[in-house]
Formats: sequence, structure tokens, C-alpha cells
Amino acid sequence: MQPLNGKLFTPEDVAILRDIICNRRDVRGNRFLDRPVEEDVLQQLLDAAMHAPSVGFSQPWEFVLIKDTGIKQQVKESFIIENEKAAPVFEAEKQATYIHLKLEGIMEAPLNIAVFYKPADRPVLGQTSMEEAGMYSVVCAIQNMWLMARALNLGIGWVSILDAEKVKRIVKAPEQNKLVAYLCVGYTDGFYTQPELELVHWEKRKAVEKAVFYERY
Amino acid sequence: MQPLNGKLFTPEDVAILRDIICNRRDVRGNRFLDRPVEEDVLQQLLDAAMHAPSVGFSQPWEFVLIKDTGIKQQVKESFIIENEKAAPVFEAEKQATYIHLKLEGIMEAPLNIAVFYKPADRPVLGQTSMEEAGMYSVVCAIQNMWLMARALNLGIGWVSILDAEKVKRIVKAPEQNKLVAYLCVGYTDGFYTQPELELVHWEKRKAVEKAVFYERY
Repeated sequence: MQPLNGKLFTPEDVAILRDIICNRRDVRGNRFLDRPVEEDVLQQLLDAAMHAPSVGFSQPWEFVLIKDTGIKQQVKESFIIENEKAAPVFEAEKQATYIHLKLEGIMEAPLNIAVFYKPADRPVLGQTSMEEAGMYSVVCAIQNMWLMARALNLGIGWVSILDAEKVKRIVKAPEQNKLVAYLCVGYTDGFYTQPELELVHWEKRKAVEKAVFYERY
Repeated sequence: MQPLNGKLFTPEDVAILRDIICNRRDVRGNRFLDRPVEEDVLQQLLDAAMHAPSVGFSQPWEFVLIKDTGIKQQVKESFIIENEKAAPVFEAEKQATYIHLKLEGIMEAPLNIAVFYKPADRPVLGQTSMEEAGMYSVVCAIQNMWLMARALNLGIGWVSILDAEKVKRIVKAPEQNKLVAYLCVGYTDGFYTQPELELVHWEKRKAVEKAVFYERY
């Protein structure tokens, strides 16, 4: 088994990847355009996801593509309930900001994708000590898709203010599946130059030195 | 707040991203070269990680950079124990393959990175209904780093056959932190043309149609 590939990327390729990574944004309903996502564009997103790393090459991801207004409306209702519960947990000053933030684009985005982790029915190589590696594989697929979307000038927003069990029931997901993400996908009128929560001074960007330790904590 | 960025990527940029995504591999100890990772290259990896999406812009990732042989050796010992427990769970035919697979590069890779999720000490926007969104943010950072490594022609291998609590103790991680990944990083003598577990017929690549559902299951 020696099919080694000598493919070398160039500094120009590195610069393009960096540009895509740094210009990726979480896109919400105030930015989505009413323009459908073309079938070949959707296939490019799914192709990027399918080439993500996965523990034991298990590829444990499933994607439910949702365009139906009735289904989106049910998911939106779950968002509204969870979002009403969320606001009061923040301190007074932040609550005022919170309620003015547009935090999802479920109805506005022409395409929603519910992304699930489907556990294997037999042991998976590499997943015997860290069960979570299966869910992590699904997240790698989502990040591949998100970067590919940005390269295609398409916005994605990840909605996590949802009752995962309700969403599972809405799309009739098998009991053993786990909802990892609910994505809103569509063209946008532009991408912010910085993360929206940085622009509104909700959180500051962390310096790399604050996140790095040498040899041990 | 309208700093919208009109930056548009081109089909050539899309092709480069696809190439990086499809040529990324999980690299193990039989492929790493004995060549240090330069400081500026390491900074590019960390920079890619720091620009990942994170729930509520919480950036909950921490990276422990390990070069010390003694620390690596302790982690390797955890791998050996967990790997011995893992082999018997597979059926007879697969066990024979399993014991011949090189599944980590802890000692061979010049750099190891233990990646942790550090929970916030106050509520995080978007994490109020789905607590796991914090760990998922860390995985997004890892995937960014993995793609950047590939663009820099650097290999990364993700070792999940470890006792996470032991690794925490080895690097003296705070109790509340959670080990998400243990990465082996270094230059390599090449990248396989396909995932190694596909080449050795451990698992087949899934067709996209098997992973996609329309509107609901």
C-alpha cells in the first residue's frame, strides 16, 4: 500500500484558504436573499462535507434538506420558545442587546439543513475510547461545508437555540440519531468584515497567546 | 452596523479549496519526517484555528503544544492501553487487520497538540439550549487547522484511542476543561491518494445519496 500523492500546495493556495477561513461568517435572516440555491452548488456543499475526516472512516453524517415552509415554521417555533427562555439568563445590559439581535434565518434562508450524527451498528475503529469522536466527525463535515459555502459566496448560519428533540420529531429522525446542527443556507447581500458579535461588542476576539500553553497548563 | 464586505471568491478559489479538502489525510507515525515544524508555520495553524466559528463568539478553545519526549511517552502509554482494549471488540477477520494498522504518531511527530474545550464562567449566547455547541466550536477550530496544515503540506493525525482523563492529568489541565482532540503534527513523506482505511478495505466511501434526505426522514 504505497499510493502516496506528492501533491504540494503553494503559498498562493495557503493565502486563498486563509482568506476563505477569515471571511467566513455566521449569516442570519436579515442578510439572506430570496434566491434559490442551485442544485450544482448544493452538490458542491455536500461533496465538501462527504470529504471530511471521520473516526474510523465511519462517515456518520446525515443531512436533511428542508425547503418546505411548513417544516421550517415548526422549527422556527422551537427557536422562538428557546430564545424566550434564553434572554433572561444574560445580565441586564446584555439582555437589551440580546433581544435586538437577529439570531437565525430559518424562514428567510431558501434552504435549511438539519445535520445528524447516525451512530454505527457495530464498533468503529478509533471510537472505542472516545465515543464523542463520532459527533466530532459530523462537525468536521459541517465546517468543510461552511468554508465551501463561503468560497461559493453563499452564507450559512448555524442555529443552536433549538430544542434538539423537537427538531428530531419534526423531521421524523430515527431515535438513535443525534441532531448536531441546524443550518440556514442561502445567498446573501454581503458578509460582515468581522463577526457580528464582535461588531456589536458582545465579545472581543481572543489573542492567540491566551489560548496557547507549552508542554502543560 | 453595516460594514458589509463585498469580497467575492472565484471558481478558481473554489477549486483550490476543494483540492485541499479532498487531499487532506489523517497522517500516522509511519509517515512523519524527523523535521521540526517552524514557528511561523505553527502560527499559521493557530491563526486558522482562532478564526473558526464559535457559539456566541466564545472562542472556547485551548491548545497545549507538546514537544517534550517524556510527556509524549506518557500519552503514548495511554494509547497502548486503550488500543489493547480496542482490538478484541472487532470481529476476527478485522482484528488481524487492526493489529497491523499504525494508528498514531505520538512519538514520531515532532509536535503534538492537545486541544481542549474550556467552558465559559458565564452564559454563552447560543449555548443555552444546546450545551454541546461549545465542544463543536472547538472541533471547527481543529478542522480549520487540519485544512491549513494540508495547504502547508504538513500532516496531522487525530488520536482518539486515549483515556481523556489520563491525558488531562498528564498535561495538568483544569478540572472543568474537556479534552476534545489529541493531534500529531509534522511534515510527512507524502499523503495517500485515498483515506488509509479505504485503501486497506476497512470501510468503503459512502455515496452522497445514502446520506441525504429530503424534507424529512
